[in-house]
Amino acid sequence: MIIHLLSLISAVLLMAGLSGSPAPIQKTAAPAVKPLVIERQGSFFIGGRDVHSDTLSTLPAYAPTGTVTVDQMYVRYQVPVDARRRSVTLIHGCCLTGKTWETTPDGRMGWDEYFVRHGYSTYVIDQASRGRSAGNTTVINSVKLGKTPIERLPDVFEAGHEAAWAIFRFGPEYPKVFPGMQFPLEAQDEFWKQMVPDWSASLPTPNPTVDALSQLAKRLDGTVLVSHSQSGIYPFQTAAKSTEGIAGIVSIEPGACPDAGSQMQPYTKMPIMVLFGDYVDQSTRWAPRLKGCREFTQAANKAGGKVELVVLPDIGVHGNSHMLMQDKNSLEIADWLLGWIDRHVN
Amino acid sequence: MIIHLLSLISAVLLMAGLSGSPAPIQKTAAPAVKPLVIERQGSFFIGGRDVHSDTLSTLPAYAPTGTVTVDQMYVRYQVPVDARRRSVTLIHGCCLTGKTWETTPDGRMGWDEYFVRHGYSTYVIDQASRGRSAGNTTVINSVKLGKTPIERLPDVFEAGHEAAWAIFRFGPEYPKVFPGMQFPLEAQDEFWKQMVPDWSASLPTPNPTVDALSQLAKRLDGTVLVSHSQSGIYPFQTAAKSTEGIAGIVSIEPGACPDAGSQMQPYTKMPIMVLFGDYVDQSTRWAPRLKGCREFTQAANKAGGKVELVVLPDIGVHGNSHMLMQDKNSLEIADWLLGWIDRHVN
Repeated sequence: MIIHLLSLISAVLLMAGLSGSPAPIQKTAAPAVKPLVIERQGSFFIGGRDVHSDTLSTLPAYAPTGTVTVDQMYVRYQVPVDARRRSVTLIHGCCLTGKTWETTPDGRMGWDEYFVRHGYSTYVIDQASRGRSAGNTTVINSVKLGKTPIERLPDVFEAGHEAAWAIFRFGPEYPKVFPGMQFPLEAQDEFWKQMVPDWSASLPTPNPTVDALSQLAKRLDGTVLVSHSQSGIYPFQTAAKSTEGIAGIVSIEPGACPDAGSQMQPYTKMPIMVLFGDYVDQSTRWAPRLKGCREFTQAANKAGGKVELVVLPDIGVHGNSHMLMQDKNSLEIADWLLGWIDRHVN
Repeated sequence: MIIHLLSLISAVLLMAGLSGSPAPIQKTAAPAVKPLVIERQGSFFIGGRDVHSDTLSTLPAYAPTGTVTVDQMYVRYQVPVDARRRSVTLIHGCCLTGKTWETTPDGRMGWDEYFVRHGYSTYVIDQASRGRSAGNTTVINSVKLGKTPIERLPDVFEAGHEAAWAIFRFGPEYPKVFPGMQFPLEAQDEFWKQMVPDWSASLPTPNPTVDALSQLAKRLDGTVLVSHSQSGIYPFQTAAKSTEGIAGIVSIEPGACPDAGSQMQPYTKMPIMVLFGDYVDQSTRWAPRLKGCREFTQAANKAGGKVELVVLPDIGVHGNSHMLMQDKNSLEIADWLLGWIDRHVN
């Protein structure tokens, strides 16, 4: 069996109350809960490299020549009092930033705080070239100044609301809504504001974020890498570099799992959960990705791994979009994940 | 007198211990202090507008046509238990993000947490088109696709280490250091990683951040706008739009103060502190800005305002760079500012 029966059964029991109409979540939101007690918090960067350029500026007030540091990864963290030994690292997906894990569009508590409240030191990152992690934009000035050919301009991708609607599986196409949808579409305006330009097509493969995650995992000496969508593959790529410091992997709706024909050895070294929401079969974009992840899961377990793949409707949880950490039942899913981590991550 | 004598004297008394060799700051850093108790925390966006584009993507996998939301302002906040009535809003400067106010490059507590620990609900923003606040990059794809002339590419500015060195007054020129420098230059690598591309030259004037700050101030119903450098002028521009919700202004090393010949009325409605560090006279960039701020201060007070301008060496505090919220004596300056806010902001 690919999925451990025991954890499946306990998951069904845990989430039994969710399969009908979802319980109101607002009652668990921040204002009604007890104060949060933080041992320490802060932010820092990991990685980065120096680049020399003579097109830093086209503005007369500022020097065009000099050195900038790019490809570093911004990390914000909170450590609760009496933190557990293992920490959690939250890694956002395409066109988004670490904001993904903070307050939901409809104003409920994000997973960042929820995991801290459950005893986990929580690290939220911005991918390289995104959010507070600087990108290298000097080629734009260089093209403007005629020093670089126009075709070398970066491919910067912005996800339009209409296209994102189907990609995030709010419905089959904009503005149709899947029946039973758990995403708080009444607050969609706040969600669209979370989206930022995505420069990853102009970055090397693997994304520099992967090397930074590897450094972070070693520094944290045992963290669960929780990735999403575009970043779904990053923890696997990190493990392929080095398994050191990776206590577990939770890959939520990965854009890709490792190829089933590739070297499986790194993925047998830690517990792995691959998690999908609802409506996957109705998406030509996501159905093949789920299939690929099933093949990976099989291959990794055949090689001795402890990989589980859960599609939420299969355990009685319905209506989840691609943005399940922001769906109306986001904290119940967090509870279930916390249970999985408790049982599997040593 | 432009500067109120009483507050000047109390400031001198408060900071007397600093005029010689600075006390070690590490002892006040997070690990050694008591746990932080948070009533609630989270993040949200203010402002933003929808833009339709047919150059959202040059990638075959993603639709080029659709709507994106840009110019919104990201806000992260923490509210302590028994928060004071007035809050503090921290606004970063050029080529930086809200990270400015978080953990210092050498790992000490940032003003964001320090103000919370002193009872202030603290709001940290990312300027529009910076950090987690999305910018509009569609013109880059449009130029690449030949739909827009090359000269319409945005002027994106990245501050090189070498130029920033003098602008931030670490020394007269890279890599010379001003004697007595308080900036933790041993951790400069971590500081360079804070710097991000600055798109403000491609944004309208006033920056969309100003309108968002105005909306935020109204929502908070009384906040002290604390700005820095490039954003130094923003609280003044916000007040010129509407003074509603602005309980006070602290403008740290502003790139510009309001023109002394402009309408002073808005600046008479709240207490204002304009604060400069050390070595200003040795900087051809900063000396004229200080002069302009002195003229503004005089004009505003003549019109009935309560504006103070403090240059730190004048009150016995020496060695501060342009990044004084990260200097080794940053928390002593915070203490002094907290005292000023306590005395002046109702």
